[in-house]
Formats: sequence, structure tokens, C-alpha cells
Amino acid sequence: MELQVAVAKVCKWSVRESGDTVEMIERPHGGLSFVVVDGQHTGRGAKQISNLVARKVISLLAEGVRDGAAARAAHDYLYTQYDGKVSAELHIVSIDLASETVVISHNSHCAPIISAGKEIRLIKETSEAIGVHRRKKPVITEIPLAPHMTVIVFTDGVLDAGIKHGARFDIIRFVEDELRDADIGAQKLADAILARANELDQGRPGDDTSILVIRIVPSTEEDTARRMTVRFPID
Amino acid sequence: MELQVAVAKVCKWSVRESGDTVEMIERPHGGLSFVVVDGQHTGRGAKQISNLVARKVISLLAEGVRDGAAARAAHDYLYTQYDGKVSAELHIVSIDLASETVVISHNSHCAPIISAGKEIRLIKETSEAIGVHRRKKPVITEIPLAPHMTVIVFTDGVLDAGIKHGARFDIIRFVEDELRDADIGAQKLADAILARANELDQGRPGDDTSILVIRIVPSTEEDTARRMTVRFPID
Repeated sequence: MELQVAVAKVCKWSVRESGDTVEMIERPHGGLSFVVVDGQHTGRGAKQISNLVARKVISLLAEGVRDGAAARAAHDYLYTQYDGKVSAELHIVSIDLASETVVISHNSHCAPIISAGKEIRLIKETSEAIGVHRRKKPVITEIPLAPHMTVIVFTDGVLDAGIKHGARFDIIRFVEDELRDADIGAQKLADAILARANELDQGRPGDDTSILVIRIVPSTEEDTARRMTVRFPID
Repeated sequence: MELQVAVAKVCKWSVRESGDTVEMIERPHGGLSFVVVDGQHTGRGAKQISNLVARKVISLLAEGVRDGAAARAAHDYLYTQYDGKVSAELHIVSIDLASETVVISHNSHCAPIISAGKEIRLIKETSEAIGVHRRKKPVITEIPLAPHMTVIVFTDGVLDAGIKHGARFDIIRFVEDELRDADIGAQKLADAILARANELDQGRPGDDTSILVIRIVPSTEEDTARRMTVRFPID
């Protein structure tokens, strides 16, 4: 099997800096964790908040702290730092090679999508943003690593795409269609979601938008290398 | 312009876990930093060392600490933790959008390669591994972000490829040939270096091997998205 992860990220239209932060860290017992944080508001202020939260979470995960504890700690830290006045939405998705599962922790109104084989669903259990009420905890979902497993996490730029033009992004239906190609790569799927959100927003994203796609696909070749690529435009 | 970064990484032949750690972190003032650490020896022990060093460096960089100070702190930390008995080789490569430069800090006998346009060179100033002598400091090199700029950093799996078969990897010559294609992508270049090292090792890497390639290429399309992909085989 091959693990594929893709991230695609754009800023809100006419804003210079995204208030979302996405970070990756290697898990000390094997595997990777991805942290997606959407800071309150937009621009520089939001970025500072999401950076603060992401930094706290990845530093704990890198030390071997379990995901749920890292999410709770991030909440307490943000709550303490800003006296309960600033919120952030937090997703942690871990590919845990020790337990051979994907662990999804979320404190967000953007419910993650999971699909194992043909079935596809949103995690319905509601959760709330961190930072503003005492003792928040994440919703944690764990699914086994298996071929054709898919996990998708996104920020509200996707959820609310097209909303000011009276449109609505039926993301579950959209992903279901895309997954008809059982071997679709994570990158292609992330790009398709971003393109559709952008289309609904008529080319002017209404909010910072981040998409994280994790897929397990059959390996096509005998290749033991791990690979990462990053691309972004610079002025 | 488009910034492209690629990482390719394999373990030493017949060893389950790589002693190298490669991590990425967003810089709070804009840009990205990549940290490549080669822990002393191989396997689990080496991994724990490289994880410790990488974790320290990225947590400092995420807080806005400058690269040279982060490298010095990682040295002091490792020296203190293991009483000067354990070494690690450390590279930090930062794409600093605030200064519009690439900053390369290294404490390693594997000299980084830099190329701006047609000229290509190794950073000749010698540096030493961190952890074993008091008050080590990195060699720091800074070059402006410009089209066709290339920076390549690697661990000794590349430097020593083929050595036990009496071969030698002339990496400068190899990269020079590859860069004749002025628009070669970072991913293609990293994969070519890895493939050549593997070939010299007759398919059995003599050491943990990590390659980091950073390139600036002209943008081909009007696309403002940032993208990251990760791929790796799982059993």
C-alpha cells in the first residue's frame, strides 16, 4: 500500500496572508501527524493565532504526547493566553503506524469526511472551536489503515464556498463522485475540491481555504522511498 | 516565480528505521524552513537523536528564533543531554520571504550545493557535527531568491554512495548535467540524485539517505495555491 497526503491552500480574496496554518510532524513512534488550524478572523491577526496553536500542538506531538491531550493542551494554552476571548478551529489527523490507524481529532464546525471503501460519511458528532470556553475537548475518530481509505479535512473556505452567491457546496456528493475513480490520488482529489470551491466563489475565495486529503492507494511499484514536495508561488 | 521543494528519503539497506529526520515548519514572518538531521549510527538509536535535534530546531524556528541561534541551541541541547558523547549532523535551509533570501546553515561534513543560474558550487567552508565539542556554530550562507536558483542538501548516504563498491558519486558533476534542463523541477532532480546514489550502491543503500532540493522556477500558470504532497509506502 502507499500512503498519499495532499494539502492545498489559498487565502481569502484580496487578503495577503492566510489565517490558516497547516503543519506536518513525524510521530516519534512511527507515522505522521497533520495539524490544520483556522484562526479567528482573517489576515495577520488570524495567522498569529493559528501559528500559536499549531506550534503548541506539533511540539507536543513531536514529544510523543497523544493527540487528544495535545488538542486539550492547545485549548488550555489559547484560553490562558487570550483570556478566553479568541477562538480557533483545530483538526489533527494522524497516520499512526504503531496502531495502524488514522486518528482524527477535531474541534471545528467543519466536520471531517471519512470513507472506507464505498461508504462515505461526515463525522456527525458536533464539536466546538478551542479557546473560548473552559475545558473543551476534541471529537476523536479512529479508523484502520486499509486500501482505499480516505480522510478529508477542510476549513470553512470550503464549507461556505459560494454562499454569498446563493450557492452551496455539497462536498459529500462531490467527493463521492470523485471517489468513483477508486485509485484517484490524494493530490488530484485535493485539487478538485479546491477548484470546485473556487468556482462556487466565482474565482474570489470568500475565506481562507485549506484542504487536507489522506488516501491509501495500492502501490504501483517497488519503491521504498518517502517523498515530499512543496510548491508555492512567490512574488 | 514558483518555489519548489522536494524531499526524497530512504533507509540503509536491511534497516527498518531511518536515522535521518527531515521536518518542515512555516516561518512566522513568512516562508518555510527545512531541517535535515542525521543522527549518529543507524536505526532506532539514531532516530531518537535526530528526532530530538529536529524537534528542538523546529520549535525554536516556529517561535521566530533566527536560524543560527536555533542551530547553536540544538548543539547545546544535544551536548547537555548526552554529555558530549553523541553527535548529529544538522542542516537548516530557510526560504525567508522577509529577507527574500535562502539561508543555509550547516553543521555537517556533507557540504550543501548551491547554484544561481549557470554557476554551481559546494559550500567549501568546513563545519562540524553538533553535540560533541563545546560551542559549535554552523556555517551560514545566504543567497537571494532568484529564478533558477537551486539549493541541494543531503546526508552521507549520498556522499558515500558506491564507496564500498569502489565507486564515487561526483554529485557536483551529476547535478550540473541535470541542471542543463533549466526548468527541471525539484522533485525530478531529487529523484534523479536518489536513483543515481541507489545505482552506485547496487540497489542496497549503504547508509540512511535524505535529499532536499529547493528550486525557483518560472511560474507556468496563474495559480495562487500552496500545495504539499507526501507519499510513502506502508507494509
